[in-house]
Amino acid sequence: MKERRDPAVINKPAALDFLFKPKSVAVIGASNRPLTIGYRILRNLSESGYKGAVYPVHPAEDTVGGLKAYKSILDVPGGVDVAHVVVKSALVPAALEECGRNSVRSVIVNTAGFSETGGEGLALEKKIIKIAAKAKMRLFGPNCQGIMNSDPLVRAYCNFTYTKLQRGGISVAAQSGGVGEVLIQRLNTLGAGFRMYASNGNAADISIPEIMSYWADDEETKVILIHLESLADPEEFMEIASRVGRKKPVLALRTGRTAEGSRAVVSHTGRLMGSGVPLELMLEKCGVVSFRDQDELCQAAVAFASQPLPKGKRVAIVTNTGGHGIIAADACVEAGLLVPPLPDRTREALKAGLFPEAAAGNPVDVLATATPAHYGLALGELMKDGGADSVLVTFITPFFVDCEGVAREIVKACAGKEKTVAAVIMTDKARQAKTLEIVKESGIPVYDFPETAAKALGAMARLAEYRARSGETFEPFDVDKAAARAVVTAARKAKRAVLGARECAIILDSYGIPRAPAANCANLEDCLSAAGKLGFPVVLKIDSASVIHKTEAGGVVLNIKDKKELAAKFKGMKSLAPRPRFLVQKQLPAGIEIIAGARAVPGAGHVIMFGLGGVFVEVLKDVVFQFAPLSEQAARRMVASIKSHAILEGFRGKAGADTEKLAEILVKLSQLVADLPEITELDLNPVFAYQDPSKTAAVDVRINLNLSTVHRNIP
Amino acid sequence: MKERRDPAVINKPAALDFLFKPKSVAVIGASNRPLTIGYRILRNLSESGYKGAVYPVHPAEDTVGGLKAYKSILDVPGGVDVAHVVVKSALVPAALEECGRNSVRSVIVNTAGFSETGGEGLALEKKIIKIAAKAKMRLFGPNCQGIMNSDPLVRAYCNFTYTKLQRGGISVAAQSGGVGEVLIQRLNTLGAGFRMYASNGNAADISIPEIMSYWADDEETKVILIHLESLADPEEFMEIASRVGRKKPVLALRTGRTAEGSRAVVSHTGRLMGSGVPLELMLEKCGVVSFRDQDELCQAAVAFASQPLPKGKRVAIVTNTGGHGIIAADACVEAGLLVPPLPDRTREALKAGLFPEAAAGNPVDVLATATPAHYGLALGELMKDGGADSVLVTFITPFFVDCEGVAREIVKACAGKEKTVAAVIMTDKARQAKTLEIVKESGIPVYDFPETAAKALGAMARLAEYRARSGETFEPFDVDKAAARAVVTAARKAKRAVLGARECAIILDSYGIPRAPAANCANLEDCLSAAGKLGFPVVLKIDSASVIHKTEAGGVVLNIKDKKELAAKFKGMKSLAPRPRFLVQKQLPAGIEIIAGARAVPGAGHVIMFGLGGVFVEVLKDVVFQFAPLSEQAARRMVASIKSHAILEGFRGKAGADTEKLAEILVKLSQLVADLPEITELDLNPVFAYQDPSKTAAVDVRINLNLSTVHRNIP
Repeated sequence: MKERRDPAVINKPAALDFLFKPKSVAVIGASNRPLTIGYRILRNLSESGYKGAVYPVHPAEDTVGGLKAYKSILDVPGGVDVAHVVVKSALVPAALEECGRNSVRSVIVNTAGFSETGGEGLALEKKIIKIAAKAKMRLFGPNCQGIMNSDPLVRAYCNFTYTKLQRGGISVAAQSGGVGEVLIQRLNTLGAGFRMYASNGNAADISIPEIMSYWADDEETKVILIHLESLADPEEFMEIASRVGRKKPVLALRTGRTAEGSRAVVSHTGRLMGSGVPLELMLEKCGVVSFRDQDELCQAAVAFASQPLPKGKRVAIVTNTGGHGIIAADACVEAGLLVPPLPDRTREALKAGLFPEAAAGNPVDVLATATPAHYGLALGELMKDGGADSVLVTFITPFFVDCEGVAREIVKACAGKEKTVAAVIMTDKARQAKTLEIVKESGIPVYDFPETAAKALGAMARLAEYRARSGETFEPFDVDKAAARAVVTAARKAKRAVLGARECAIILDSYGIPRAPAANCANLEDCLSAAGKLGFPVVLKIDSASVIHKTEAGGVVLNIKDKKELAAKFKGMKSLAPRPRFLVQKQLPAGIEIIAGARAVPGAGHVIMFGLGGVFVEVLKDVVFQFAPLSEQAARRMVASIKSHAILEGFRGKAGADTEKLAEILVKLSQLVADLPEITELDLNPVFAYQDPSKTAAVDVRINLNLSTVHRNIP
Repeated sequence: MKERRDPAVINKPAALDFLFKPKSVAVIGASNRPLTIGYRILRNLSESGYKGAVYPVHPAEDTVGGLKAYKSILDVPGGVDVAHVVVKSALVPAALEECGRNSVRSVIVNTAGFSETGGEGLALEKKIIKIAAKAKMRLFGPNCQGIMNSDPLVRAYCNFTYTKLQRGGISVAAQSGGVGEVLIQRLNTLGAGFRMYASNGNAADISIPEIMSYWADDEETKVILIHLESLADPEEFMEIASRVGRKKPVLALRTGRTAEGSRAVVSHTGRLMGSGVPLELMLEKCGVVSFRDQDELCQAAVAFASQPLPKGKRVAIVTNTGGHGIIAADACVEAGLLVPPLPDRTREALKAGLFPEAAAGNPVDVLATATPAHYGLALGELMKDGGADSVLVTFITPFFVDCEGVAREIVKACAGKEKTVAAVIMTDKARQAKTLEIVKESGIPVYDFPETAAKALGAMARLAEYRARSGETFEPFDVDKAAARAVVTAARKAKRAVLGARECAIILDSYGIPRAPAANCANLEDCLSAAGKLGFPVVLKIDSASVIHKTEAGGVVLNIKDKKELAAKFKGMKSLAPRPRFLVQKQLPAGIEIIAGARAVPGAGHVIMFGLGGVFVEVLKDVVFQFAPLSEQAARRMVASIKSHAILEGFRGKAGADTEKLAEILVKLSQLVADLPEITELDLNPVFAYQDPSKTAAVDVRINLNLSTVHRNIP
């Protein structure tokens, strides 16, 4: 992991103004040859109507792109906010030195051949990072496209692509320039345009999280779109994304999801998305809405940019074709929305005002012959009705209907209201250009298909759910943190990564995590005495760091009935390790087998795991995960969301388990690993759960420590 | 279910020529008022350049739409192939009578107010069906849009919408006219156009399967798209779709998938998709590729219309942006495709011919700076390489590259070859119009996003898989069908819907389906003697039609150890029913609990079910289904496809089960219900399965019969 930047720098709102709102741009490596990047950037600046000064730098030419050229960046007068560097990679360090000497505020190094190639490129990248840092000059790239700003007062096209600078409210940051370009081209095609754009390639200095932080304070940015292939610093990302996500919708394209895709990520970026980082969970934890499809992302962004977030998942559908009502209902449900029946009052109002053959259910089918007044009435009722959080209106344009009139009624009923609206207008776009324009100009997002609108509304409802959950807080239990900390510190000092049974017991007890009663024993006498106190039957386990897989090694015997059996089993077990210790544990009655655990995620805290044991985890992989620490509500959701949940409720007359107790154990577990980040793995496997919460207890526990670096957890 | 038509009529290839290639069209209810259907149809016929004669029928006007009008259809000279009927519903019967008298060959009744409204409308529809049948006149509709044919020799626009008649190879049949219109508009926008179109509303006579059958023989139709909301006759659909699907790709939009969607179907069409008909299975059984999304369907259709089917699921990806290579790999895998490493020979050829920094894995990243020659080389190698069945090539158009040259190389390497190809060109469509055109004109489908191309290739691979499976045939076992038939016939004669234990045993034995050894007993002496022969422990079960839930009623006692216990249990059980019989069954050792069964699907044969018992079926719903009869391969796939499959393989050292034996039982079960369609439900619950196939046996069986109608099964 690279060195972290000072958060104070990142969080300063105007910190990137000079990059995104440059008053002057120099191009080192400017060229008169049309197929070069040095030509293209100059041309883009001029064609986009850039409002600042442009300084081509060329060692020989007097003019480049019709502008006066300078022999060196040192010759450029006045301050330079952005200097593009497009010279060969070997010449970049010298160019940056000169930039520094002329107080250039930031450099966009478009040139490739740095860390993405490994070896010498990596060294070269480290070198330019140093040069820039020394000169207090921010570095964008290398191996990158650049930035764009469609603000009419700026119009900066510091990039070598050719996408129209179409003004809008969506800002896009993409690790892959190719993907970023496709996203803004699509936003343009959809008529949404974009606000600012950044593709920072190797991200040697200015990172996507820093850019997100800057856009969080940019008033004209309504929505932030990001595309990430690898996360250099998961902690930085989670910290910033969580904060930005509370302020503005952040939508992420999640690529490299499959084994094949992530193999391609390695091949492309030379690094893996922090091996084992559960990106989906991370995004959810930060309140970032993730997408799998570029078009779906862009289409949803249009709605996010113009509509208020819905308060919940309930959607009301209005249509003038039954077939599309069905399609919309299917698509809404599959996008995670609810399509509930409408309240009686609304149904009655619809029945009274629509054609007698119209359907006043949900979907509301106003019929193909519906007039503008019918649309107005139906939408008016739904907008004021408390039974839905958003409205999806579809309109196929029949030739015998006043289509522009319908459009005007849609706008009158829905535009600028507090309820979320998405419109689907299915038509010949040339013939019904005016109809489309009426709705689009009102700020209501217009889609070609009900499926697309449903997905956009579904994404908005997801964010609303994340936001609602952001009020849930982790409430720490009253624990003996010092006692647990002492165990961990002592073990690490002694360079022991695997904790012994006695140590595990102290830690669980300190956090009030119930375990089966047990005693640590050194010899047979201890064992017999402990069994006498605990009461037979008992379990005998070996307790030795040299026996890791106890069960497989014969280091666990269950259900020992009496002293004689205990003595016999002891005899068999004591030779398994040199100078072993033993654990004598009360044999609990059969309960529902649960597994609960925690895993450290480098740079991003711990993930808590929950599931049922045995075939449920091993064959059916019916396990759920969440980042620590857990709120009580989040822990309850984990318990409720396993597929085999019905077993906890008591299946076929069998006893169930107290699920509140299980949620409590998860919260405590999350508190424990948050307090003790040195823990890399903790497994309670199994926990025996019963209807009586006071009986629920961990039967076996394993705790592993990290003996080297320790990452902080994210609050 | 409605009366079935004579298959001979349906299967006659040219049977619908007069409808889709009419030499003359009359419009009864033609009008000079622009916002009427009677006006719009005339206008559409003239604007589309219809090649035949057009006869407006109007009771008063001399000319309509500038054409000579006739007072009555009886006055129209010459033969009329199609008569549109757009008069009020009450006037339709009389209009049809007149059409019949003037030998009109087919009528398109656009008018609504028939079965879709229930009650009187239903009666009216029955009436017009009779009139048409009597006059040997085919009826299209009522409550429908009509047909279209873009053939330059026909150009028939017998429909009141206004979609451009853009020539193409895809024919579209839609139950909902609104959905159909959106589909063809989208095909037009995608540049694919369409061949013929039909939306037949209530489908009183001419059905979508009949239309599919007609299009199967239409040479210019390369792909058939269908949209169905309800299936009037599942058997007709399956028969015809299976046959047509072997000849041409049939792609279906599956709507009403969710509870909410299917509620909307009822509201829209007044009927449910044959309550309980598992449409997804049905489509798969017929080799129809199903889609959930209108746009995805249209985008895939473009590839189906122009590309050969791939031979398998392996795809090779070529890209000039790493980011899109990753996106393509993810999307391909998620679309069910494989993205395997390339063969060494291919990798070496790529390494030798591409830039040194290019990635010769899969995806192949030729780099943004790749020349036309690089694209040509990479694609040439992949097209001849045996390691992939299809090629997905993405191209983002860098300004410094000869983009048209790349397009030409793509075409040269890929167009018209035997391997499936899909291209993704990401660009500014205005600036790179020529580049796009070069590829599109070659017949290679061009997409905007890798995700869309991947889904299209995935759908093609699905059809290839269906086609490959169509060679798998059901191989009947040698069974004693007569013995089983006799049991069923006798029970039905006696009006007994639930078979007794002895009857079930005969049926299973006749088909070689193993069951636990057992004896039918009338009294205690019988029971004791049977137990003596079988050997203790035994199971005692009551066998009485009046005790349906035996276990709950106390009619099953397991694991009876000796004669004394048997006598005691017998005493307790004999009062559960008047004059009961008993089953004494050998108690089998614990095995893996399997459930297998069959359910009749009205009008579509039987569905076979397979899963593990207990929590696996009841909590986790880990059960799979397939239509009977099953090929050996299909049965094996069922066994292999449950999520808990690993348990059958032997989980954690526990004994597994012989899966071949389970597959054999499924095939025999499917043969049984195919031979005995009177069976509505058959449950083997549980079957105890062991590693030793000879021990695997059904422990309990339940067979229910249909005492009224019986549907045929589909071979």
